[in-house]
Amino acid sequence: MTDAARLRPGGRTARIRTAVVDATLQELLANGYGEFSVDGVAVRSGVSRATLYRRWGGRDGLVMDAVECFGVSHADVPDSGCFDEDLRKWARSVQRLLTDPTTAPLVRAVLLADSQGARNVRRHFWRSRLQRVRPVVQRAVVRGDIPEDVDADEVIRHLGAPLYYRFLVLDEPITVQAADLAAAVTAIAVHQGVFGSTSGGE
Amino acid sequence: MTDAARLRPGGRTARIRTAVVDATLQELLANGYGEFSVDGVAVRSGVSRATLYRRWGGRDGLVMDAVECFGVSHADVPDSGCFDEDLRKWARSVQRLLTDPTTAPLVRAVLLADSQGARNVRRHFWRSRLQRVRPVVQRAVVRGDIPEDVDADEVIRHLGAPLYYRFLVLDEPITVQAADLAAAVTAIAVHQGVFGSTSGGE
Repeated sequence: MTDAARLRPGGRTARIRTAVVDATLQELLANGYGEFSVDGVAVRSGVSRATLYRRWGGRDGLVMDAVECFGVSHADVPDSGCFDEDLRKWARSVQRLLTDPTTAPLVRAVLLADSQGARNVRRHFWRSRLQRVRPVVQRAVVRGDIPEDVDADEVIRHLGAPLYYRFLVLDEPITVQAADLAAAVTAIAVHQGVFGSTSGGE
Repeated sequence: MTDAARLRPGGRTARIRTAVVDATLQELLANGYGEFSVDGVAVRSGVSRATLYRRWGGRDGLVMDAVECFGVSHADVPDSGCFDEDLRKWARSVQRLLTDPTTAPLVRAVLLADSQGARNVRRHFWRSRLQRVRPVVQRAVVRGDIPEDVDADEVIRHLGAPLYYRFLVLDEPITVQAADLAAAVTAIAVHQGVFGSTSGGE
């Protein structure tokens, strides 16, 4: 219980952060990144503009913090003991992220924004997700399930890419079947040794 | 020569279309889809606003026509006689589309736009590209190189998706190696029968 309390502290600072993150999400959902306003967050959260600028530095800091909270709370990293099953579970969690009526517009807002600030948020968010999910591949290597020289980052990218492609480019439904297919394609290619460590370049 | 002349007619109508398509591309590159202005196209092309509205119907018609010209002229559909090689060539042509200093910002503009009109342009453009490249898969089925029940559209999607994902989500370089990896992953999965005809759902 002490650990849980430490993880989710109930103090005034934590309550303010929760209110600000919620307000930031609402503001993003209502106005997108382009029309996002710090004043809007102040009104929605009841936290003063001055406090928002002092503690978050402005729009990008607010969005970064919200996206981080959101990313962390939704990144349910699978550890089933079976590599193929872990891939399938991760693909399905991406599928949920891109179809949930709350998270889908948020992700779209972050992805459609085209300023340098938005690009930084995006990069940070996806790198931290990548970091969290990389162990799925590393554990499979340790278990001896997949080739040792596998490029973990490329595996994770290939897993999510077809779903983001449907979401951003094709405007087509992101089905559970699409998630399972992406997982099956990636798994086969990993087992066949296609993802050698110099696979994708940087 | 008569056929070539018929394909690229040199009449006044054709000259106007070429000027308008060029001006539309310039306008998109300069202002993106969001700030795109028909007046800007009129100034750049020397074609009157009235003619633009009469013949293209406005912004979406102009963009659709430019994107179509552009898509057609860049969709170099491979036919090497070898399925894996065709996939590699198509992935490399997507890689060029997303890295060429002229086409990359154009594709980004079309993809970042978030209006209903932009979504229509996008859908039309990608469906027509899909239609053009589908024979790569169909010819391989006829040759007996790959399983008969393969879902051609899903194959094409999985081929391009990792490159668009780097382009739109990760902001990472789209290398030739990334293209070759996407092709290798897709090819292995096709040969292993992962792309059954009910694979991705609709």
